[in-house]
Amino acid sequence: MTLNELKSVPHKRVTVDDVFWAPRIETNAKVTLPVEYEQLKKTARIDALKLDWKPGDENEPHKFWDSDIAKWIEAVGYSLGARPDPELEALVDSVIDMIGKAQQPDGYFNVHFTVVRPQDRWKNLRDDHELYCAGHLMEAAVAYFEGTGKRKLLDVMCRYANHIDSVFGPEEGKKRGYPGHEEIELALVKLYRATGEKRYLALSKFFIDERGAQPHYFDIEAKARGDDPKRFRFRDYSYNQSHIPVREQTEAVGHSVRAGYLYAGMADVAAETGDETLLDACRRIWRNMVEKRMYLTGGIGSSGQGERFSSDYDLPSETAYAETCAAIALVFFARRMLNIEGDGAYADVMERALYNGVISGISLDGRSFFYVNPLAAYPAAGARKAEGAGAPRREWFGCACCPPNIARLLASLGGYVYSEGENEARVDLYVAGKAEFDLGGHKVALEVKTEYPWKEKVAIKVAPESPTEFTLALRIPGWCRGAKLKVGGKPAGLPRITKKGYAKIKRKWKAGDRVELALPMPVERIESNPHVRQTAGRVAIQRGPVVYCLEEADNGKDLADVVLPKSSKLQVKAGGKLFGNGARAVVITGKAARRDPAGWKNELYRPAASKMKAITIKAIPYVLWANRGVGEMVVWVRSA
Amino acid sequence: MTLNELKSVPHKRVTVDDVFWAPRIETNAKVTLPVEYEQLKKTARIDALKLDWKPGDENEPHKFWDSDIAKWIEAVGYSLGARPDPELEALVDSVIDMIGKAQQPDGYFNVHFTVVRPQDRWKNLRDDHELYCAGHLMEAAVAYFEGTGKRKLLDVMCRYANHIDSVFGPEEGKKRGYPGHEEIELALVKLYRATGEKRYLALSKFFIDERGAQPHYFDIEAKARGDDPKRFRFRDYSYNQSHIPVREQTEAVGHSVRAGYLYAGMADVAAETGDETLLDACRRIWRNMVEKRMYLTGGIGSSGQGERFSSDYDLPSETAYAETCAAIALVFFARRMLNIEGDGAYADVMERALYNGVISGISLDGRSFFYVNPLAAYPAAGARKAEGAGAPRREWFGCACCPPNIARLLASLGGYVYSEGENEARVDLYVAGKAEFDLGGHKVALEVKTEYPWKEKVAIKVAPESPTEFTLALRIPGWCRGAKLKVGGKPAGLPRITKKGYAKIKRKWKAGDRVELALPMPVERIESNPHVRQTAGRVAIQRGPVVYCLEEADNGKDLADVVLPKSSKLQVKAGGKLFGNGARAVVITGKAARRDPAGWKNELYRPAASKMKAITIKAIPYVLWANRGVGEMVVWVRSA
Repeated sequence: MTLNELKSVPHKRVTVDDVFWAPRIETNAKVTLPVEYEQLKKTARIDALKLDWKPGDENEPHKFWDSDIAKWIEAVGYSLGARPDPELEALVDSVIDMIGKAQQPDGYFNVHFTVVRPQDRWKNLRDDHELYCAGHLMEAAVAYFEGTGKRKLLDVMCRYANHIDSVFGPEEGKKRGYPGHEEIELALVKLYRATGEKRYLALSKFFIDERGAQPHYFDIEAKARGDDPKRFRFRDYSYNQSHIPVREQTEAVGHSVRAGYLYAGMADVAAETGDETLLDACRRIWRNMVEKRMYLTGGIGSSGQGERFSSDYDLPSETAYAETCAAIALVFFARRMLNIEGDGAYADVMERALYNGVISGISLDGRSFFYVNPLAAYPAAGARKAEGAGAPRREWFGCACCPPNIARLLASLGGYVYSEGENEARVDLYVAGKAEFDLGGHKVALEVKTEYPWKEKVAIKVAPESPTEFTLALRIPGWCRGAKLKVGGKPAGLPRITKKGYAKIKRKWKAGDRVELALPMPVERIESNPHVRQTAGRVAIQRGPVVYCLEEADNGKDLADVVLPKSSKLQVKAGGKLFGNGARAVVITGKAARRDPAGWKNELYRPAASKMKAITIKAIPYVLWANRGVGEMVVWVRSA
Repeated sequence: MTLNELKSVPHKRVTVDDVFWAPRIETNAKVTLPVEYEQLKKTARIDALKLDWKPGDENEPHKFWDSDIAKWIEAVGYSLGARPDPELEALVDSVIDMIGKAQQPDGYFNVHFTVVRPQDRWKNLRDDHELYCAGHLMEAAVAYFEGTGKRKLLDVMCRYANHIDSVFGPEEGKKRGYPGHEEIELALVKLYRATGEKRYLALSKFFIDERGAQPHYFDIEAKARGDDPKRFRFRDYSYNQSHIPVREQTEAVGHSVRAGYLYAGMADVAAETGDETLLDACRRIWRNMVEKRMYLTGGIGSSGQGERFSSDYDLPSETAYAETCAAIALVFFARRMLNIEGDGAYADVMERALYNGVISGISLDGRSFFYVNPLAAYPAAGARKAEGAGAPRREWFGCACCPPNIARLLASLGGYVYSEGENEARVDLYVAGKAEFDLGGHKVALEVKTEYPWKEKVAIKVAPESPTEFTLALRIPGWCRGAKLKVGGKPAGLPRITKKGYAKIKRKWKAGDRVELALPMPVERIESNPHVRQTAGRVAIQRGPVVYCLEEADNGKDLADVVLPKSSKLQVKAGGKLFGNGARAVVITGKAARRDPAGWKNELYRPAASKMKAITIKAIPYVLWANRGVGEMVVWVRSA
């Protein structure tokens, strides 16, 4: 049984031909994927697969290097489906050959734990990343199989999964352990879906069910190593979401990437097994996250100390961590909850992250990356300590999780746009292009024309193979008020047919039927809940799903001093040449004010006497910031 | 020769009988000093002086434990002068006996490096604290000698100083080292002044001159230990102000307590040796600090990462470190610069720290302490990691530098109030009480009556032994506009006689002469320089030298949401029962506004639509915050 109302239409059946995404996906395939291979090669990750590292050599293979390669293979797997590239495919095949050769006779695969610390295999699930790397490799295997039809990596990873299944589980003689860094849970569900092997689903469920049980596995294994369980670098097990069993959890806690992957895996297992108590935990955690712990950009994990969620309503802008990977994990979780619940509220969050805090993680040229995505930047205030914090973006990181994560997200973006049910075709995001639906055996094609998110009109052409009755469900975004719908040129009463955020048009569709949707996108000022101390008295500019920011390049320094009067009318303009392959982006201008610095000398403080002077501000999409050099940036602007 | 225009009138010749300070000093003597002894005893610091700790025992003596005892002895030394207390004196004598017995035959004294790591003596000046502890013990010795006339500790410490002088110096065969944690520089000048031994001044000058010279001593000693000099926990030597020679330094950098002590020592050596280039460095660093790196409260060192100064204009409120000890070090530096330059601008900063960011470090009952003094607190946002950060104050710390530092400051407070020159008696702070001046042999008594800082009138009765011509100099605080002065009941034209912040009344004074000063104290809103991003759009309430804050106890939660309109009239009220022994404090009330939370449900963000509702706010002196339980607090209030 499954709880899934809907399934994503896989990216292979979706064509993206879109002003926002298509240039990014193109750059990803042509620039980012080759560049990332070069980095993997240059940083010794690829050659480590030869297993010829010896103590004393340089470039000791790190315990999560495997995962960087895995995400890159996964990305290529997605990309090759849509864009054959024999050279790239040959390259990946050669890497997969190396992985195959490096697999141990019992099926085990991890470079670090084969050549650096073979004696430590499966001894420290809390801190080591064996299961995490395994999960990413399984995802890669499934993606590469689906993209190319080649089974090799899939077979290798099934053997590894079988090995893992022989080591972990509830049965006598197996370890009752689970990963310190979650990821394998959702990967095993993918492997199960790709192969039909139920053991993989059962193993994923085991990892989820066992998590946080007492006596605590991480204590047990620490003692077995001769370590004091209390000497845990991250203090308590909420860091890795194992402080209590997952079904008792109510808040999004700990390391935000671990959390997001776990929650996505929980949703998968709940859906596949019909586990309502697990789904309830997902719902509770989701609500806590999006109602109290999420940035306007869809960033999560506000604290750089442990890359963690902090406390309710603690959302600092300048010191925001908001790791790129965490926003991607949120997209995964949102997508799964959307498929289960069919509620547009999940799509709203997915869209928020995708159009803002995910893609801010990569430069327009596809060559550099943010690990950390703050909502305000003041470079003159000194470099942040966290690796990857602060502009400019970097070409690579010691901990290189984010670059290939963005690459796989972009390469599979089509998979987030549509979903399909027994008798329903859904449009979850408005991305120009085409899709092919399979509605219980009936083939239906959709063609979407739009310049979303910059323009408000969406035109959809419906083309079933043969005239068919089904429901076309169109998401009415949560940010949108006054949407208008025409079906076959005739106005349709949206309120009457809109349920859980989707307009549902049930009729007998025939080829050539047309639907037109208008999603008004006035420029809006957004305020945050009064409990969010860091953004009190401030507004963010948003238009449609796009969050805006002020950059120094357009507005000068000391952006904290800019005040946007409530009465100021904000106007939409074409961004044009500003942004290279983001050229269709819309910018926003308006009158504002800032203190006249003329009266200031050297004093740090003085009796308040400043005059304000009028200025004009220009706001650009947050997702495009830091593409014009290093400078200040603010999302939340003071309001008066 | 000396550059000092003036000398402080020592606290022994000053009586404090004052609404602000007297209750604090009384509590310090009666509660804090005994309580701190109990802590020193309870935490094994006192018994460590027996030198009977052995490897494997509990309570391994820490390398800077000696300094905690030293500051406590110093505090008692100051206190006993004004308030004989035979019991306390006997207790200190017993501790001094232990110190004397623990001194090594060659004069060396440090418990940690005698019983724990004897092999490491003087091997790691960068990270160890031998010279730091030595400095505090020297200060203690001088204070105890001056307070009681007892030479024992002074003799012990002179022997230690002689030993140090035999180890360090420019001569062949001596180490060219200097402390990683400065403090001994100013202590050696005190020891020199107390004993007349010029070697101590020369040694202090050596430590200052040598600091930052190349090849770098901390590199040399690291290599000698077999360590890689680059593996320094705090990265670069600006942490301890040895990145370049001190005369080339232009900014207040690094660990703020180390910095403050160094700068005070530099000023001392400049004054005693007539070294203008050293004084110039002090002036440059001072300006950088007070014009770009100082909180409104006189706190310095804004970053908790390394307890450091960060960058210009980087003054976050909630994450302010602003260690109590750093504010005290700023008072030391200010006092010395004031004595050299005679400029009231230094007294303004000294006053700012004393009435705000220093004494905020101790509770009204004298039993608990802040290590960190933030300018905004939101306890619900989770405990800060730094030890001692966040309310409530704590009774003690593992690193217990702040509690005895406040104790010695309070016990010697009288020493910051007046200064005297050849022919000039100065009032630097307005503290009710009496003082005896020695103006080149002429005795002059002053009696000051005032309820400063709560009320604006100051009445001074002048009483020279015999009619004498001299200048009475009265500080006109930098915050004050429209001060009025009457001499003998007749208005004196202040602008004409005011120079560098002091009104100078030169005449033949006779006993019974009276001077009256009115220092208008309207409630003011203070703004910060537009480069300070964290306080843009905010004002702080200040009246006279006192900075105010809003506390949750008076104003509810979510204080970030409070807006103070420019038009709101702020009114002064008696604080009365609120504050126990701070009972005369003045509070400030006014009309303000905050968002009406009525329309909010669970949403984290929404289109800006909040209505404001009128509220009345009550502001209390910052120095009194966190005396009524744990709650929110803000100094900088949003302005509209």
